[in-house]
Amino acid sequence: MAELRIGLEGVAIAESAISSVNGEKGELIYRGYFVEEIVKNHTFEDIVYLLWYGHLPTETEAKEFRAKLASQREIPDYVKDIINKLPKNLTPMAVLRTAISAMTVPGADWPPTTEQASVILAKAPTIVAYYYNHINGIAERKPRADLSHAANYLYMLHGEVPEESHVRALDMYWMLSADHDMNASTFTARVVTSTMADIVSAITAAIGAMIGPLHGGAPSHVDDMLDAIGTEENAEPWLRDQIEKGERLMGFGHRVYKTYDPRGAALKEVVKQFSGDNPLFKLSLHVEDVAVRLLNEYKPGRNLYPNLEFWAAGVLRTIKLPRELYTPSFTLSRIGGWSAQIMEQSANNRLIRPSCIYTGPKPQGEHKKM
Amino acid sequence: MAELRIGLEGVAIAESAISSVNGEKGELIYRGYFVEEIVKNHTFEDIVYLLWYGHLPTETEAKEFRAKLASQREIPDYVKDIINKLPKNLTPMAVLRTAISAMTVPGADWPPTTEQASVILAKAPTIVAYYYNHINGIAERKPRADLSHAANYLYMLHGEVPEESHVRALDMYWMLSADHDMNASTFTARVVTSTMADIVSAITAAIGAMIGPLHGGAPSHVDDMLDAIGTEENAEPWLRDQIEKGERLMGFGHRVYKTYDPRGAALKEVVKQFSGDNPLFKLSLHVEDVAVRLLNEYKPGRNLYPNLEFWAAGVLRTIKLPRELYTPSFTLSRIGGWSAQIMEQSANNRLIRPSCIYTGPKPQGEHKKM
Repeated sequence: MAELRIGLEGVAIAESAISSVNGEKGELIYRGYFVEEIVKNHTFEDIVYLLWYGHLPTETEAKEFRAKLASQREIPDYVKDIINKLPKNLTPMAVLRTAISAMTVPGADWPPTTEQASVILAKAPTIVAYYYNHINGIAERKPRADLSHAANYLYMLHGEVPEESHVRALDMYWMLSADHDMNASTFTARVVTSTMADIVSAITAAIGAMIGPLHGGAPSHVDDMLDAIGTEENAEPWLRDQIEKGERLMGFGHRVYKTYDPRGAALKEVVKQFSGDNPLFKLSLHVEDVAVRLLNEYKPGRNLYPNLEFWAAGVLRTIKLPRELYTPSFTLSRIGGWSAQIMEQSANNRLIRPSCIYTGPKPQGEHKKM
Repeated sequence: MAELRIGLEGVAIAESAISSVNGEKGELIYRGYFVEEIVKNHTFEDIVYLLWYGHLPTETEAKEFRAKLASQREIPDYVKDIINKLPKNLTPMAVLRTAISAMTVPGADWPPTTEQASVILAKAPTIVAYYYNHINGIAERKPRADLSHAANYLYMLHGEVPEESHVRALDMYWMLSADHDMNASTFTARVVTSTMADIVSAITAAIGAMIGPLHGGAPSHVDDMLDAIGTEENAEPWLRDQIEKGERLMGFGHRVYKTYDPRGAALKEVVKQFSGDNPLFKLSLHVEDVAVRLLNEYKPGRNLYPNLEFWAAGVLRTIKLPRELYTPSFTLSRIGGWSAQIMEQSANNRLIRPSCIYTGPKPQGEHKKM
């Protein structure tokens, strides 16, 4: 009989050279580099290059890669038409999922290639920005090839070339959130790829997994929580009430990390640097302290700490991203990691096909074997 | 360290009361019934009811369920607009994936409900037929609420009320292919659902997995193979050549079945009944015999037999479905199974999050734990 492993904790579904999470030590490695180190002197484009090609780009490689992405940012008119036709009540993530699903990429369906991945990675921010401007009655802002991946995204959303500190903050967030071994959306992409389906199918599927509040859907809920708490005095009673009602605290706890999430720690530094005396930063710090203390009181031994989302919300708020774009903006970086994982899966593929323990009624009679 | 289980063979990811495959015995059970028995006196709608609600419908329940599906078949104009706008080189499966992704369903995003599933199940055949007629310059054929799920689909495609035997053949195929425990697309749907994402995300993702030739993409390749073989005399040299070149024979072998696939056996009977002396049926029988003999010769002990797809191709050919609609037509039945599995996953949810064994370079230096 098959072995029951609901949730697949402790089950490795691949040997992978891309990224590695050590939850006990609070470590995240991208291809041989501690994530908090590698982000210091690089940009999002460099990190994607590292994840895809296995080594950091030389100066020439980095320049070529940036230029390649920049030259592919425009989205076809039919994708704009589709976005225009979608009902207004579709969420931004549902719009992104649909627009990516509608895309075509160059070359054969199999195997997935960096050429194909670069098309999706380059155009995805344009999809989000086009949608956001469309839904808000703002005229289309064409992507600019002279800006970096992060700067161009902020430019398309805000209509002006962003200040350097905002670009750097978004770049930090994107680098830190680009890959995270076999998280649910990445695993979804690998299961789809394991059937020898194309990269568009795999990324469309992964976007669906990202929609779930147990995965990518959390950061905007962190801001909702901070709004609900409002003041430092209200933090303890509010959080206590939530925990006692059995509600999950958004932005705290992680399936894998049993200590401080290294991405959260790095983002906290970013927020600190850019927020200064901003009262929301002070409130976030206070909520973090109280929540960690209360979680330890109510759930001793569970080691619940703020995760990526808690401080991601702080960064995204600081750079003035609208709350409804938090999860899509997270998705834009994870497309880099998904693509690397999809290509690795395809290079040494085996169909991922688990089983279940049947608990339904036993059939009457006997099956006649052919 | 995590245990390496590439492909997840022998790993059960859920206790499930919906369906069960016993690969050694060649058994497939739907909620307490052997599949080859239950299909004899039922229709596709009854089987979906059984999968969703856990029991066969009473006469009243069956009537109400058929009426509910029939009344929801029309697709909104914006979905038609989107299909019209998509590039002509998108595959029918990519179109179905995109159109489903664009859909809205009633109620909250969580938990998924039978109300939501019935909207998707009812409208999916209309999407496929609308697309097929559009791409072939045929005027739209609105769905008819007075026909069964299978009869209406054939009506929309062919423009006339189909003969009873064709409806029965499609119904048999759909009943036999509606669910199959933790196959790759169903598993994809469950992983997406485990993040608490909505049913549209889960089904969109599952369609992506279905696109892969190792999963749903096989039946049309069976017809391509029969075309390439052409005559009975050519079967042995052609098949021998393929096997010696290391090519996979489409329609043979299955990850789970180590004996004759019970669905293939039942479909073979359907094809036999409707094909009579049709030369393609005779060729299929001959190819089956030769392929099983040669596979046993070249790969002894692997127990490779025809699978669902081999005889599915025969059924779909008999009822004159165009080859490019084989995989979408398979998908239309599996939406029934996916929905049951999505609802079961949500009822007792746990995030599905495996890990990997990191094989990349070791980082320099030491990570500083926060």
